[in-house]
This record gives sequence, structure tokens and C-alpha cells, in this order.
Amino acid sequence: MRIMVAKLTYFAMMGLGEPIRLIFAATNIEFEDIRIGKEEWQKLKPTLKLPHLPMLEMDGKTIFQAIAICRYLARKNGLCGSSEDEALDIDVTVDTLEDMRKKTVVHYYQPDSEARTNGLKEAINVTIPSYLKIFDKQLEENKGYLVAGKFTWADILFLSHTDYLSYLLLLDILVNFPNLKKYREKISDLPGIKEYLQKRPPHPGDCRVFFF
Amino acid sequence: MRIMVAKLTYFAMMGLGEPIRLIFAATNIEFEDIRIGKEEWQKLKPTLKLPHLPMLEMDGKTIFQAIAICRYLARKNGLCGSSEDEALDIDVTVDTLEDMRKKTVVHYYQPDSEARTNGLKEAINVTIPSYLKIFDKQLEENKGYLVAGKFTWADILFLSHTDYLSYLLLLDILVNFPNLKKYREKISDLPGIKEYLQKRPPHPGDCRVFFF
Repeated sequence: MRIMVAKLTYFAMMGLGEPIRLIFAATNIEFEDIRIGKEEWQKLKPTLKLPHLPMLEMDGKTIFQAIAICRYLARKNGLCGSSEDEALDIDVTVDTLEDMRKKTVVHYYQPDSEARTNGLKEAINVTIPSYLKIFDKQLEENKGYLVAGKFTWADILFLSHTDYLSYLLLLDILVNFPNLKKYREKISDLPGIKEYLQKRPPHPGDCRVFFF
Repeated sequence: MRIMVAKLTYFAMMGLGEPIRLIFAATNIEFEDIRIGKEEWQKLKPTLKLPHLPMLEMDGKTIFQAIAICRYLARKNGLCGSSEDEALDIDVTVDTLEDMRKKTVVHYYQPDSEARTNGLKEAINVTIPSYLKIFDKQLEENKGYLVAGKFTWADILFLSHTDYLSYLLLLDILVNFPNLKKYREKISDLPGIKEYLQKRPPHPGDCRVFFF
């Protein structure tokens, strides 16, 4: 285990903190995994440069924006492909995974309960499968990974986002995509990731508790 | 002017196509600037790998995801800072500019007219100024640029997003931020960008015409 002074602050859930935790796990970097609740968040929020988490403190810097943090850690630790063309393909895949996540969580955190139910149905039946078809095809074309026939941070984001959305929606979103399921298992079994998943703390039943 | 075989397809408006056009302009790369309307979009959409624009065809590849495209072009053309730490600071700034844009356009494209008016008021009076304060401070700390005391693609995204949001909202969002206004003028006056802005086609009065 490499020792770095890295401290990650995020809510006690998966969300946008999880891909960062998984990148640390996959690259064997020790970090302080601070998981906060609603009350701590309300105290912390007004003191921050940007009003959201995750926040990473590392090398004397305080860094916000989850995806930018992931990309930086991936670049520094060999998870960003081996050319600018591969880095582009990873970025495109990551932004598409982010689109899938955002189009789902916008309904999950919708306060009106009828609009919420209808929105989540649409996400489960239409939006998510339309994205999963894209990733399924990429898997076929990239020798069992999402990009460039090798393990990159796009695979970590896939694992974390499909896990997180399945958790929010109380169903496995990959149920009709057997190849994606096998691929998620393969990524979950990688050294570092496997040990992290075995020991990670439980998540709240309802992630809205942090915000409402 | 360097000649490349680059073809950019986007709607006949600023939006997410504009930062790509501006990066081409700033780096003196000629490109085919295809601007389509609603009817052409409806025909094109079902044929695409991802159901959105912009789409860049270059070097035999068809590339989606505007911000990924910008980053790739910036990396290839010296607009991405000179270290991974600077590239990180650019990414964080870009994602924050994207947050500001998204939190505004979500109201702009809201179909319910009362919710739309209230949402846009909130964007103008609260959301946008809270982000502009962050960028104003960055400008002070980075010698008149957003990152690293030099011109990067974060400055191009600032120009394109503040221009675009001002256009949508029918007011200059920088009106109470004199330093940001001067800085936007400075970026607008850079070689390549200045000529592009002088000759760019007019935009529609209402950008919703492409989607509704």
C-alpha cells in the first residue's frame, strides 16, 4: 500500500464519491475516507469554495468536482489509456455514463412524488436501457472493456455508476444485459477493488436523507 | 490557416457547439461548420450513436460529447496548461462553468411557463452570480486568466458560456462584474477568436425552436 496524504470527504453513500474511492482502491493508494451525514454537511457547506461534495485534500490542495478528480488520479496512476486518442474515448464514455446517472438521479431527488414515480419508471424502462445498449456494444468492440481493450477509469466509473443506480432503484439495472453483468463482476474482482468492496461500510436505505 | 479534415455538426446556435468552434478559431484550424435546424435534426437523430449534438468528424472518427471534444482539441493544440496539475485546475473550472450553464438551461427549456419564469429569475438573481463570484476570484488569483496565469481552454469556455447565457436571458450576465467583463473582452480580442466572432452567423431569437 502506497502512503499518500489524501483525505476524501463525501456523504456516507456511493454517489460521486465512490468512483474516487474505487480509483484509490484499484491503484493501491491509502486515503482517509471521511463519510459525513446531513448535519455535518450543513455545517461544512457554507465554509467551502464550491457548495458540493466530494472534496479531496491532497498535496496541499483542496480539490472539488468529482469527475475532474477521477481524471487527475487516473492520469497520474496509469488508468487513462496510452494516447490522447484513448484518453478521448475514455472521456466520451465517462460523459455518457454521467448522462445516464444524471438523467436518473434528477427523478430520484424530485420532491413531487407522482412526478418522481413516473420519472423513475421512464429511467428504468427507457433511458437506462438505451445507454446500456451503447455500453454493451462498446464491450464487444473493446475485448471485454469499455475502451481500448484494457482496464481504464471508464471501467471504474461503469462499476460505480451501475452499482449506485441499482442501489437507488432497488433493482439490478444490468438484469437484461448478461455480458455487462459478467463484465461488472470481472471489474469487481480486480485486486484492490475486491478488498475495498468487501470492507466498505453499508449505505443508507434512502439517499435523500442527506439533502431533505 | 492549417487545413484539417474536420466537420462539426451542431444546431444553428451557440450552445455546446460554440466552445468547439472557438477552439478551432483560436488555434487557427479550418473546419466545416455545419449548422442545422429542427427538421434536419429530426432526420439525423435516429441515425446517430448518441442522440445529441455536437458531433465532430475528424481523422476518420465520429466523436460526440462536447466537453470531451474540447479537451481533446485543447490537449492537441497547447490550450491545456503545461502540467497535469494545471490540466486538473482547468477541468475543475470547466466543470464549474458547466454546472452554471446546466442550472440555467434546465429552466430555459422548462415547458411550464410559470416554473420557467421563476426558475430563470432564480438563475439570474442567485445561481449565476454565485458562480461569477468564484470566477471573479480566480481571475484575481491567476493574473487575468481563469487558470495558471495563462490562456487555456477554460477561458474559451468562459467566453462561450457567458455569451450564450447572456443571449438566452436577454441581458449581459456580467453587468455587475466589471473585471469579468474586461476579461471577456480581452479573450474576445485574441487573434482567430476576434475574426470568428466578427463573421459568425446570427443566432435565433429563441433557442427552443430546435427542440419544441
